Amino acid sequence: MLVSALLTSVGINSGLCVLFFTLYSILRKQPTNYEVYIPRLIAEGSSKRRSHFNLERLIPSPGWVKRAWKLSEEDLLSTSGLDAVVFMRVITFSLRVFLFAGVIGIFVLLPVNCSGDQLHDIDFADLSNNSLDVFTISNLSSGSKRLWAHFSAVYLVTAFVCYLLYYEYKCITGKRIDFFHSTKPQPHQFTILVRSIPVSAGSSVSESVERFFMEYHPSTYLSHMVVHRSSKLQSLIKDAKKLYKRITHLQSEPNQPQYRHVGFFRHRVDLVDHYGKKLEDIEENMRLERSEVSLATQEVRAAFVSFKSRYGAAVAFHMKQSINPTEWVTELAPEPNDVYWPFFSSSFMRRWLSKIVVIVACILLTILFLIPVLVVQGLTNLNQLEIWFPFLKSILTITFVSQVITGYLPSLILQLFLKIVPPIMEFLSSIQGYICHSDIEKSACNKVLWFTIWNIFFATVFSGSVLYQVSIFLDPKHIPAKLASAVPAQFLNVYAPKYETAGKFWPIVHNSMIFSLVLMQAIAIGLFTLKKLPLASTLIFPLPVLTLLFNEYCRKRFLPNFIAYPAEVLIKRDREDRNDPKMAEFYDNLVAAYQDPALLPIQFSANSDSLNSPLISAAQVRH
Amino acid sequence: MLVSALLTSVGINSGLCVLFFTLYSILRKQPTNYEVYIPRLIAEGSSKRRSHFNLERLIPSPGWVKRAWKLSEEDLLSTSGLDAVVFMRVITFSLRVFLFAGVIGIFVLLPVNCSGDQLHDIDFADLSNNSLDVFTISNLSSGSKRLWAHFSAVYLVTAFVCYLLYYEYKCITGKRIDFFHSTKPQPHQFTILVRSIPVSAGSSVSESVERFFMEYHPSTYLSHMVVHRSSKLQSLIKDAKKLYKRITHLQSEPNQPQYRHVGFFRHRVDLVDHYGKKLEDIEENMRLERSEVSLATQEVRAAFVSFKSRYGAAVAFHMKQSINPTEWVTELAPEPNDVYWPFFSSSFMRRWLSKIVVIVACILLTILFLIPVLVVQGLTNLNQLEIWFPFLKSILTITFVSQVITGYLPSLILQLFLKIVPPIMEFLSSIQGYICHSDIEKSACNKVLWFTIWNIFFATVFSGSVLYQVSIFLDPKHIPAKLASAVPAQFLNVYAPKYETAGKFWPIVHNSMIFSLVLMQAIAIGLFTLKKLPLASTLIFPLPVLTLLFNEYCRKRFLPNFIAYPAEVLIKRDREDRNDPKMAEFYDNLVAAYQDPALLPIQFSANSDSLNSPLISAAQVRH
Repeated sequence: MLVSALLTSVGINSGLCVLFFTLYSILRKQPTNYEVYIPRLIAEGSSKRRSHFNLERLIPSPGWVKRAWKLSEEDLLSTSGLDAVVFMRVITFSLRVFLFAGVIGIFVLLPVNCSGDQLHDIDFADLSNNSLDVFTISNLSSGSKRLWAHFSAVYLVTAFVCYLLYYEYKCITGKRIDFFHSTKPQPHQFTILVRSIPVSAGSSVSESVERFFMEYHPSTYLSHMVVHRSSKLQSLIKDAKKLYKRITHLQSEPNQPQYRHVGFFRHRVDLVDHYGKKLEDIEENMRLERSEVSLATQEVRAAFVSFKSRYGAAVAFHMKQSINPTEWVTELAPEPNDVYWPFFSSSFMRRWLSKIVVIVACILLTILFLIPVLVVQGLTNLNQLEIWFPFLKSILTITFVSQVITGYLPSLILQLFLKIVPPIMEFLSSIQGYICHSDIEKSACNKVLWFTIWNIFFATVFSGSVLYQVSIFLDPKHIPAKLASAVPAQFLNVYAPKYETAGKFWPIVHNSMIFSLVLMQAIAIGLFTLKKLPLASTLIFPLPVLTLLFNEYCRKRFLPNFIAYPAEVLIKRDREDRNDPKMAEFYDNLVAAYQDPALLPIQFSANSDSLNSPLISAAQVRH
Repeated sequence: MLVSALLTSVGINSGLCVLFFTLYSILRKQPTNYEVYIPRLIAEGSSKRRSHFNLERLIPSPGWVKRAWKLSEEDLLSTSGLDAVVFMRVITFSLRVFLFAGVIGIFVLLPVNCSGDQLHDIDFADLSNNSLDVFTISNLSSGSKRLWAHFSAVYLVTAFVCYLLYYEYKCITGKRIDFFHSTKPQPHQFTILVRSIPVSAGSSVSESVERFFMEYHPSTYLSHMVVHRSSKLQSLIKDAKKLYKRITHLQSEPNQPQYRHVGFFRHRVDLVDHYGKKLEDIEENMRLERSEVSLATQEVRAAFVSFKSRYGAAVAFHMKQSINPTEWVTELAPEPNDVYWPFFSSSFMRRWLSKIVVIVACILLTILFLIPVLVVQGLTNLNQLEIWFPFLKSILTITFVSQVITGYLPSLILQLFLKIVPPIMEFLSSIQGYICHSDIEKSACNKVLWFTIWNIFFATVFSGSVLYQVSIFLDPKHIPAKLASAVPAQFLNVYAPKYETAGKFWPIVHNSMIFSLVLMQAIAIGLFTLKKLPLASTLIFPLPVLTLLFNEYCRKRFLPNFIAYPAEVLIKRDREDRNDPKMAEFYDNLVAAYQDPALLPIQFSANSDSLNSPLISAAQVRH
């Protein structure tokens, strides 16, 4: 690739950046867009819609950037929870790594590489036609003393990243514990999910759960909620909601035609009446289905079991309950909002098999993805392209077009293809048997991560030139950046967090960084061997070992706190609550916290809070 | 290798077998040997020393084999514990696998191989000069239909072994639970070991433990016993014991000279008096050392903490106790007899580092062991040997000598070298920071196992001919046989088990079998590829996947019960004890059960029970 192609790419990206920045700065100030950009503030009533016009509205201003970055962790914690804080820390962490590696790369490695004479001297007069290779390690001759600069860079970056990782892990662990102490009692802290419940003949799942926990946890057991097969009911509710939305839409917009020609004979039908009748039918079906689902025969062999104390729940979670470890399988309950009701397969074997199927599917997807990658590789080779598509020959001779195609288009196409991957991975994770949205997303995130590593690195690098690609990996910040691709402003004003994992995703970031470091070190060993500096490759060998030992230490020192809270913390927290008069009320609510929403009495208004419409029934809709 | 060489080897081994069998059968009947062969029966007083002579004594009789094999599991369980039962099951299991694979090998694969024509026809007239290769798969031509017999054998053996493994795992799990229910309350069931105890300034480890467990486990905590640094005291006790043994030896054998010339001037010294004085000095040192060791300054940051119930101990074990997971690290306590006092490093980091050092040492040993293996390989090549040692030429031309050297000597030398490995591995395991003898032995067993697999398979096979060695691996029983190299008679009459793990070593056997199966399947895939039967190699591919899935299922279904008992079992057992009047006494003993034996008041008689000597003190020794 030539320098000019890189510069074209940089130019296009910078231009787009400025454009989007300007557009956002202006659009966010238009009152009509308030619902898009600051829905949380409106919902909280803390922002008024200013309708009077002023010139300031049309001038892009960067004040929001300042406000977003000045935001303290305490503010973020109180508005958006710990996940948001950890997310921001991941971004800051990535920027720090990027900055450190960038400074070393630009101010040390780049001059060192340029000073080499392996390829040819730089033509400063016609800089843009120099090959990019002049700026890479390829330009250093074999056995050159200057390679030791790269050697030192590997050690420095590793040490810096490990120090940051340790510091962040420690800090986030502390924040997790503090967060746990500061939150109000939460249903999921007192509850575990029990699966694969054995049922003796003639008794229901509910009776079985009651008997087991009364027998083995009599002093801490509070209540339980057996999960029911409600997929049919859920689809009925979905239909009813759709219909209800249509009706409210018709009512709220009186200008719309309220009548329509329907059927073969084109009868004029009152639409509100028509939909209302349909809704009534569905509601009747729902009532029938609900009474059927509530029966013991529709019980799934899984139940949410609540305890009187957090410690009681934790003990039941940590101990194997049954002689047969595939029965009475316990896991920590997710937050009630976080439960993924549609997929509640209870059988141990079925979950296990679906997991294996999903793994196979992921591997297949990763392999099939080589096809677009190879096409993209073809794009960087203009001659190949001219052979494939001869009619493009005349266009491809224009310098700018060829630069866009070789410098910008390949990465754009790859990015577009990569955009399809997360939804697919999320779908795969959702059928893998996870019980909550956060686990599904965490698993999908992991899948995307490994997919990306495989495709971007192994496929691209091994089909292209290894040496050229190395520069990407000497800067290992790109992986956390995948996780951290949002700006703060959104945490504050747009999204209300659906669930809180209290930073449970940090270990994923940590592991990815360790992987990147070891990869960088492995590449460095290969490079120094290629460049005939055996002493350097030998001296780098301890580095991956030390990095992995560091990782192992972190796993022992910090990871357990990300899986479950220790006894010390749980017991302290339980004691704090012991004299709290509000706990009686909390226990009352706890009993029903994990009720399947499909089994709750119907409230069509539940999903239309933002429209501020009153509670409404099908009868009311029809007047 | 020629058939004759194999037959020589078989002949020598069979001859040795008959010889040892006869010797044992005769020697065991001589009353002078009773202390060697049936010490347990004598100790229990159930066998009298018959001193009258009869002819029967000199005739070898196989009756003991019958008695040994007729022994029921119940008898074995009551006399030698569950470990012995599981050990016997391992042997029976190995024999079953051996029999199954042997029958298939001899009656199906051997005729099929012989019927091939790849090498040359068998010369039945001069059978012993045929090459062994005629009996192996090498004799089948590429793409031969007869290879499907081997294909079926791989499937059959895998299915049979997996069925047996599942059956055994299930059976042994059941026995573990039954055993737990049937044993009397044991101190280790109520106790956990806590390490890395944090100590605040100005307080002792003991106070710290007391405070922590009174705070977080007030209802179940019973008592604790802090470990003290007693290595110096232990070596003093060792010296004193040696000296004491010498004195009793002198006293018991009046024919021995009681005087000796000592020192430069050859004074005549009363030896008993001399040793008695020495013993007195050591005892004085011991008293001083003991009072010093008992001080809080000599406390190690580790303690045995006992609870009022098994469930209480299990809860404290399963839960992470502290916010810092490297502090208050809990593990199940071993039986008091099983504790390995000498090595009680308490620091988390030190144990971790010594583990890494040991792993490195094991790898080095495994690599260095290639040297004897290569020498042995040289032995099988006679020509090479003649070049190295020309003076042997005349001897090597004798047929018998050459057959012994190529057929028997290599395996003998390898076996002798292999004999050094277990003690080395046991030493390495002992410095790895394990707290009990059983863990050290289990770890050493694992090390020897992997060492053997690596050396016997990878080193020998890859330096020799792959095809020839395969026959060894089509019969995967050889690994459990390493574990199960004892005969029952010994359980009954010779060894009193020092500790009881209740069959915890079964998972090692299981894992080794799974490894052997997958190895066999991998070799089969390679073989069918070499023999150009691609359909067979493709059809074998699902087999290792299925085997590993089976293993994973067993890990989930059975392994948890081998790590810790489930809540159900513990609580039931605790309830059974609740009304037992003996429990008060048990609790009293429990408090002192984990006292370091070095800190107990001295009893020289402790180690000399077999001599039936009375309790004795240094003063008594001197009259």
